[in-house]
Amino acid sequence: MTPPPLPAVMTEPLVRAALLEDLGRAGDITTDAIVPPQAQAETALVARQAGVVAGLDIALQAFRLLDPAIRTEIARADGSRIARGDTIAVLTGPVRGMLSAERVALNFLCHLSGIASATASVVESIRGQRARVVCTRKTLPGLRTVQKYAIRVGGGFNHRFGLDDGVLIKDNHVAAAGSIREAVARARAAIGHLVKLELEVDTLAQLEEALDLRVDAVLLDNMSLEEMRRAVALVNGRALTEASGRITPETAPQVAATGVDLLSSGALTHSSRTLDIGLDWR
Amino acid sequence: MTPPPLPAVMTEPLVRAALLEDLGRAGDITTDAIVPPQAQAETALVARQAGVVAGLDIALQAFRLLDPAIRTEIARADGSRIARGDTIAVLTGPVRGMLSAERVALNFLCHLSGIASATASVVESIRGQRARVVCTRKTLPGLRTVQKYAIRVGGGFNHRFGLDDGVLIKDNHVAAAGSIREAVARARAAIGHLVKLELEVDTLAQLEEALDLRVDAVLLDNMSLEEMRRAVALVNGRALTEASGRITPETAPQVAATGVDLLSSGALTHSSRTLDIGLDWR
Amino acid sequence: MTPPPLPAVMTEPLVRAALLEDLGRAGDITTDAIVPPQAQAETALVARQAGVVAGLDIALQAFRLLDPAIRTEIARADGSRIARGDTIAVLTGPVRGMLSAERVALNFLCHLSGIASATASVVESIRGQRARVVCTRKTLPGLRTVQKYAIRVGGGFNHRFGLDDGVLIKDNHVAAAGSIREAVARARAAIGHLVKLELEVDTLAQLEEALDLRVDAVLLDNMSLEEMRRAVALVNGRALTEASGRITPETAPQVAATGVDLLSSGALTHSSRTLDIGLDWR
Amino acid sequence: MTPPPLPAVMTEPLVRAALLEDLGRAGDITTDAIVPPQAQAETALVARQAGVVAGLDIALQAFRLLDPAIRTEIARADGSRIARGDTIAVLTGPVRGMLSAERVALNFLCHLSGIASATASVVESIRGQRARVVCTRKTLPGLRTVQKYAIRVGGGFNHRFGLDDGVLIKDNHVAAAGSIREAVARARAAIGHLVKLELEVDTLAQLEEALDLRVDAVLLDNMSLEEMRRAVALVNGRALTEASGRITPETAPQVAATGVDLLSSGALTHSSRTLDIGLDWR
Amino acid sequence: MTPPPLPAVMTEPLVRAALLEDLGRAGDITTDAIVPPQAQAETALVARQAGVVAGLDIALQAFRLLDPAIRTEIARADGSRIARGDTIAVLTGPVRGMLSAERVALNFLCHLSGIASATASVVESIRGQRARVVCTRKTLPGLRTVQKYAIRVGGGFNHRFGLDDGVLIKDNHVAAAGSIREAVARARAAIGHLVKLELEVDTLAQLEEALDLRVDAVLLDNMSLEEMRRAVALVNGRALTEASGRITPETAPQVAATGVDLLSSGALTHSSRTLDIGLDWR
Amino acid sequence: MTPPPLPAVMTEPLVRAALLEDLGRAGDITTDAIVPPQAQAETALVARQAGVVAGLDIALQAFRLLDPAIRTEIARADGSRIARGDTIAVLTGPVRGMLSAERVALNFLCHLSGIASATASVVESIRGQRARVVCTRKTLPGLRTVQKYAIRVGGGFNHRFGLDDGVLIKDNHVAAAGSIREAVARARAAIGHLVKLELEVDTLAQLEEALDLRVDAVLLDNMSLEEMRRAVALVNGRALTEASGRITPETAPQVAATGVDLLSSGALTHSSRTLDIGLDWR
Repeated sequence: MTPPPLPAVMTEPLVRAALLEDLGRAGDITTDAIVPPQAQAETALVARQAGVVAGLDIALQAFRLLDPAIRTEIARADGSRIARGDTIAVLTGPVRGMLSAERVALNFLCHLSGIASATASVVESIRGQRARVVCTRKTLPGLRTVQKYAIRVGGGFNHRFGLDDGVLIKDNHVAAAGSIREAVARARAAIGHLVKLELEVDTLAQLEEALDLRVDAVLLDNMSLEEMRRAVALVNGRALTEASGRITPETAPQVAATGVDLLSSGALTHSSRTLDIGLDWR
Repeated sequence: MTPPPLPAVMTEPLVRAALLEDLGRAGDITTDAIVPPQAQAETALVARQAGVVAGLDIALQAFRLLDPAIRTEIARADGSRIARGDTIAVLTGPVRGMLSAERVALNFLCHLSGIASATASVVESIRGQRARVVCTRKTLPGLRTVQKYAIRVGGGFNHRFGLDDGVLIKDNHVAAAGSIREAVARARAAIGHLVKLELEVDTLAQLEEALDLRVDAVLLDNMSLEEMRRAVALVNGRALTEASGRITPETAPQVAATGVDLLSSGALTHSSRTLDIGLDWR
Repeated sequence: MTPPPLPAVMTEPLVRAALLEDLGRAGDITTDAIVPPQAQAETALVARQAGVVAGLDIALQAFRLLDPAIRTEIARADGSRIARGDTIAVLTGPVRGMLSAERVALNFLCHLSGIASATASVVESIRGQRARVVCTRKTLPGLRTVQKYAIRVGGGFNHRFGLDDGVLIKDNHVAAAGSIREAVARARAAIGHLVKLELEVDTLAQLEEALDLRVDAVLLDNMSLEEMRRAVALVNGRALTEASGRITPETAPQVAATGVDLLSSGALTHSSRTLDIGLDWR
Repeated sequence: MTPPPLPAVMTEPLVRAALLEDLGRAGDITTDAIVPPQAQAETALVARQAGVVAGLDIALQAFRLLDPAIRTEIARADGSRIARGDTIAVLTGPVRGMLSAERVALNFLCHLSGIASATASVVESIRGQRARVVCTRKTLPGLRTVQKYAIRVGGGFNHRFGLDDGVLIKDNHVAAAGSIREAVARARAAIGHLVKLELEVDTLAQLEEALDLRVDAVLLDNMSLEEMRRAVALVNGRALTEASGRITPETAPQVAATGVDLLSSGALTHSSRTLDIGLDWR
Repeated sequence: MTPPPLPAVMTEPLVRAALLEDLGRAGDITTDAIVPPQAQAETALVARQAGVVAGLDIALQAFRLLDPAIRTEIARADGSRIARGDTIAVLTGPVRGMLSAERVALNFLCHLSGIASATASVVESIRGQRARVVCTRKTLPGLRTVQKYAIRVGGGFNHRFGLDDGVLIKDNHVAAAGSIREAVARARAAIGHLVKLELEVDTLAQLEEALDLRVDAVLLDNMSLEEMRRAVALVNGRALTEASGRITPETAPQVAATGVDLLSSGALTHSSRTLDIGLDWR
Repeated sequence: MTPPPLPAVMTEPLVRAALLEDLGRAGDITTDAIVPPQAQAETALVARQAGVVAGLDIALQAFRLLDPAIRTEIARADGSRIARGDTIAVLTGPVRGMLSAERVALNFLCHLSGIASATASVVESIRGQRARVVCTRKTLPGLRTVQKYAIRVGGGFNHRFGLDDGVLIKDNHVAAAGSIREAVARARAAIGHLVKLELEVDTLAQLEEALDLRVDAVLLDNMSLEEMRRAVALVNGRALTEASGRITPETAPQVAATGVDLLSSGALTHSSRTLDIGLDWR
C-alpha cells in the first residue's frame, strides 16, 4: 500500500531551498528576457521510461511556489506504475513559471521516482517470499526524509531514520564494551521502551550470544548464502534477521530464499539512477 | 589541475544540516550508551574501490564539527587517484565522535568521490581529444554546489550553476519569441556583459541561423554522430559546440571524435554510483 | 546512569537563538555602558535549592558563545545531585560577557535542572519497583530535544520523540479503522522493523484484543488502580504496560505497585518548576 | 483590555518549527497508516479546567499549516475566561490533519493559557490596588515573544523584552562603576531618549541616592514588607517601585498593600503549570 | 525594457526578515493599543519626488505578509517614470496592518527606487551613445539580489553577481601569477565555457598583452579620458572596454564619449540616496 | 564615548550571509584558479578619505570566517577619527582568503563608516548645543542592528529599534482613536513601565494637549524654525522635543538653536554615502 504524500509543511523548506539554489541571484534570465508575461501553456509531466512515480506532490509544489497561478492536476499519483509515454500530471498556467520551475521539479521527481522504481524492482524480484526490502542511513545529505519516503513508495520499508530512533550495535561498539553481552546491557539500560535493538553479528557464535540476549533483530554481516541459511535456522523466529549488501533484483531472490526477514540496501538511496521523466509542451 | 577545496564557510551549513539530520532528537543513542567517553582510537578512511577522491575536506569537517577533539590528517587530497586499500586520511581522537560522525562523513565522501570518479572515467576516455566534459543543472536538490565541485575535481568543467548565470535558449523560448533571431535579440538586450549565450538547435538550418547571430555556444540536441560532424564543420570555430545526452566512457570517444567542444552529461550528477570508502579501525 | 551531554552541534542553534532573543537589536545596553571592557571576574553557578543538575554544558556554551574568552570549569556535571549552596561550575573572564550571557545560561540551566529534579523525585519515590518513569510529547515548542534529555538525566526514560519514531494507536485511530484489529494490521503493514507499536486501551476487553495482536505495549488510559492491577495480571508479561496521567512523587508508588512497567508523565516537561540556581560573584 | 493576537508572520516560524520537531523525518506514521485520506471530522478545543485562553490563534495556525483544508472557528478568543467544559474553538476537516497537528497545537495553547491563567490569578488577587503585575526575562529559550504575549493576555504587563530595550542596573554594574551615581551617569550618557532606566537597590540608603539621580524605576531587592513600605514612602511618587520575587496569589495582596507600583514574577513564565485543554471528537 | 519583478519566492525571505526586524518581540505596540481591529482604510503609495519606481512588488508583499486582508493595486509598475504626486499603488484593508507594515514597505521601495532613479539619470545622460551603465559588487550586505534588480529597472546592466559567475583578474592576481599571460592561462584552464573573463589593466602596454590573450573585456583602471580614448582605439572592438569610478550624470557623457562600452559605478548601489515616497491616507 | 563593538554572536549571521552571497555556488573562481595556496601577504585597510571608523570588527570577522589563518590587528578601532592615508588594521596570512573576503569586508566597513562619518559631521556641527542627533526606523532591510550601531559610533543616539520598543503616536493613530487624549490613554493602558511614549504634533494646540498628558517626548512635525522655538518655550522642559527631517551639517545648527532636544535624521541610515576605505597590499 502506498503511503500518503509527506505533509507539504515538511517538504516546503526543501523545495524553497532548491528553487533558490537554481534561481540564484538574478532569477531565470533567459525566460524573463524572452517569454512575455501573458504567455500561457498547458504542459504535462510525461514518463520517458517505465517505473514507479514518487515525489509528484513535491514536484508540483515547486511549480506552485514559483508561480501560484500554475494549476496542477495529478493523473498518476505517487506509487503508480507508469509505462513510457504515460502522463503523470497536467499543468496549466503562465509559461514563465513553468519554464523557471521545470528543472527543480524534475530534479525531485526523477530522483525520487528513480529510488522508488529501483526499490520496486527488488521488491518484485522476491514477491511471494517473506523478506522485506529495507533502506539504510546511506542517504544523500539533506535528502533523507524524501529518499526514505521514496523507498516506502516503492514498496520497501524504512530502517532507522537516524542515530536516535533505533539501536544498532556494531563491532566497534562491542569492542568498546568488551563483549556483546555488556554492549547490549548498556544499551538496554539507556533506551526508551519504544526503541528496538539490533545487533550486527559476523559469526554464528556471536549470533547465539545475541539470541540469548533477546535482541529484536540481527544484522548478518558479510555472510555467505549458506551461513545465512544456518543463521536463519538457528534464530528460528526468535529475532528478525537482516541481510545486507549488494542487493539487486538479480541477487535478491537467492538471499531471500535463505529465509531472512530483511534485505537491506544502501545502494537504493545512494546510487539509484534517475527515472527519466520530462515536461512536454502541448 | 584539481581545484582548491570549497571554503569551509560554504560547506559548513550543509555539513551541520547533515549531522542534525542524522543525530535527530536524541543523538547517537547506541554509542552514547555503550562507548565510554574516554575511549580513544586511531581510524582511517580507506578506499574499498579505485577512483578519485572528492569531498574529503567536507568529510573531515563533519568529524570535527561533531567533536573538535578529533584530529585529522589528509593522506590523499581531493583529486587524488586512489587504488583499493589506499588510506585517504587518518583520524585520531575520541571513539564516540568518530562513530557518531562516521556515516555523515562517508555519505558526503562516497557520493562526491563517486561523481568525481565517474567524471574522470569519461574524461580519460577522450584523453587527447579537444572536447571537455561538462555537467548540467540536473543535480540533486540542495547539493548543487558540492556536486559541481566534484565534477571539477574529476577533471570536468561546469556548465551553468543556475538559471541566472548564463543564457540557454531552448525550443520553448524560441516558440515564445516567434523566432531564434527574436529570442536571441531579446536575451542580448537584457543580459550583462559577462553573461554568455548558448542556443539549443535541433537542425542544421537552425544552426546556421544561430551562427549568424554570433551566439557563444550551440547545444546540438538529439543529433546523430553524422549530424554532429556536419554541425561542427558548419560552425567552423565560430561558436562552441555542445553534445548532450547519454555520455558514458563507452560512447564518449565517438562523440568527441565528431569534433564537438563539449560533452555534457546530467547522469554524472543525478545518477553516479557512490565510490566505496570505509572507516577502518586500528 | 547519566547520559552524556548532547553534542554541542545539536545544542548550538538553540543557544545562539536564545542569545539573539535576549541581545535583541542593540545588545546589553546596561553592561556595555557601565562595565569597562578590561574588567575581569571569577563567578560561580551556585545552587540555591537542592536538586539534580541538567543542561550545564548548554549553559556554559552560552557564556562561551557570548565571549570565547570566558573559561569554564565544571564542578558538578549533569546528573549530579546538588544541595543548596553547592558550586556547580566556576567561570573566569571578562565581566561584560558574564553579565550579558547570565540570564540565557540560567534560563536553560534552571529549566532543565527543574525537569531533571522533578523526574528524579518521581523515580526515587518508586525506587525498588520495576516501573520506569517516562515522558510524553507534551513538551514546550522548540525544546523537545533538551527537555527529553533532561528527563534522561533525572533517571527517567524517553517515550516517543515525535510522531515518526513509534506507533501509538489511540481511540480516534481505532474509530477510523473500524476496529483495533484493523488499526493494528494497517500500522504493522506500514512500519519498519525497528518501530514498536503501542495501543491505548480503555477497558480490559480492549486489552485482551490487543494482547492477541501482540502489540509491544499498552497504554492503560484512565484506569483505576484496581483496573490497572487486573490489567497487569491479564497481560502477564506479554506486553509492556503504561499508566499515564497525574504522576507525582505522592501518587507514583501506588501506581507502580500495580505492577505496571511504565509511569508516563506529561507534567514533567510541560509543568515542571524551575530549579533555583544563581550566578555568584566572588 | 486584551491585546490583539501577534501577527501571523511573527508566530509562523515558531509554529513551523514545532510541527517539524514533532513530524520528524517520517511524519505521523500512525495516522498515515490507519486513517483514510477522505475521513472528515468535526472537533472542538474544550477546556478541562477553568482559566484564561491564550495562544488560540497560534494553535489554530498549527492545524492550518498542517492541512489548509482544516477550517477553524473561534468561540472564545484569547483573553476569555473559560470554565471547565467550555468550547474554545471548533474545527472541521480532514481527520488526518487534525490528529497530526493536535499535540503541537495543544502544546502551544495549554502552555500559553497556563501562563495567562496564572497571571490572571495574581492580577485578580490585587484587584483594586494600584500595583501592576509584570514579567521578567526569566523565560524559556525561544519562547519569549509568545510567553510575554501570554502575560499581557492574562492582564499583566511586560518588563524588558531583552537586554536592549531598557536599562536595569544591578549590583554588579554598580560594583564595576564604583558607585550608583557613576553607573547611572554612564548609562544615561549612552542610551536613547526612549529608553528608561531602572536601578536595583538593596537598602534605603541606596534608594535615596537613586532618587537623587531621578531614575525611572527602582527594583526593591529582597526587602521585607516593612522595608518596602518605607521605600514607597521615601520614593513618594518620584519613581516607580518594583517588588520582585515569590509573587503568588497568596502573597501578592500583602506586597501590593505596601504601595509598590509593580510586582514582578519570573515564575509566571518559567514555572507556570499548563492549563488543561483537550481536543474533543464529535 | 524593464525586467519582470523577481519571483516572490526569491524576495519573500528578505521581506519576512525585514518585517520581523521591525516587529521585534512585541509587534507594533502603538497601533495594537490604539487602532481598533475593525478600522479600514484606503491608502496610496505616492511619489514625493520624481524618479523611477523599483521594488513595488516587494513593498506590496510586505503589506500582504503582515495582513493578507490588505488588497493591493498597482498603478505604476516597476520601471515607470513618476512625477511628484503620482500615485504608485492603492491599498485597501485593515488600518492596523497598513500602519504596521508601512515602514518596512517604504524602506524597500524608497531604497530600490533610489537606485533605479540614480541609474536612470546616468543612463539618460549618455543616451545615444553606445556605452552601457553597469553596477559592481559594491552592494550592501544581504541586498545584492534586489539592488542589482533595481539597477536593471533603472536601465543599467549587471556586472558579476558574485565571485563565482565571472572572472575578473586584478593586479594582485597578476602579481601572484607572475604575468598577465600566466594569470589568464590559469583562469582559462579552470573555468566553464559560459564564464567570461575580464582583465583589469593600468597601462596601454598591459592592454596590448590582454588583447593578444583574447580576453572578453578589459577594465581600464584609473585612466584619464585621453588614455581611455587611446585604449578604445587600440582595442578596436576586440574586447569590451569598461571604465570605472566616479561615474555621475555630469561625468558620464565625457567618459562615454571616449567610446568605451561600459561605465561601471559602485556608488549606484552603495551610496544612492533614497527616493522619497510616502503612504497617503484617504 | 564610543560604544563597544557588537558581540560577535550578533554579527556572525550577517557576515556569513554576506560571504555566501558573494561566494555564490562556486566560490572565488578567479583567485582559486590563479593564486597558489601557499601565497602569503601582509595587507592593510587604509583610509582613502577622512572620517570615522565603524564596523571594523565586522570586517575583520569576514576575513577570519573566510580563512581562520588570517591574522588581524586593529590600528584604529571603531570610533576613531581617521585621515586620508591612515592605516586602520593590518592583516597577515594567505593571499587567497584576503582576496576572497576583501569585497564583503569592505562593503560592511565602508557603509558603516559612511554612516558614522555622516553622523559625526552633524554632531560636530552642533557641538556645544544641548541637542542630540538621533536616527529613525528608515534603515535598509536586514541591516538595522549594524546601522544603528554605526549611528552610536558616530556620536549619535538611537531612536526606537522597532515598532515594539517605544510608543510613537502619529496622526493616523490619533485619527483612529478620535483624539490625542484617547490615543495616549489607550497606549498608556497597554505598555510596560519601561516603555516611553512619544507623540507627533503638527500644531502648538496639539502640543499643549500633549503636555497635559505628560508624554515623554513630542515630535515636532514639519514646523518652521520659529514654530519650533515657540514649541520649545511652551514645553519648557516638560517633555523632550524632537525635530525631524532634512537634518544636515548645514541646517542642523539652526534647528538646534531653537532649543530642541533631538534632531532626528532618516537620511543618516537610508542615504549616507560610503566612506572610501581600501585594502592595500604591501
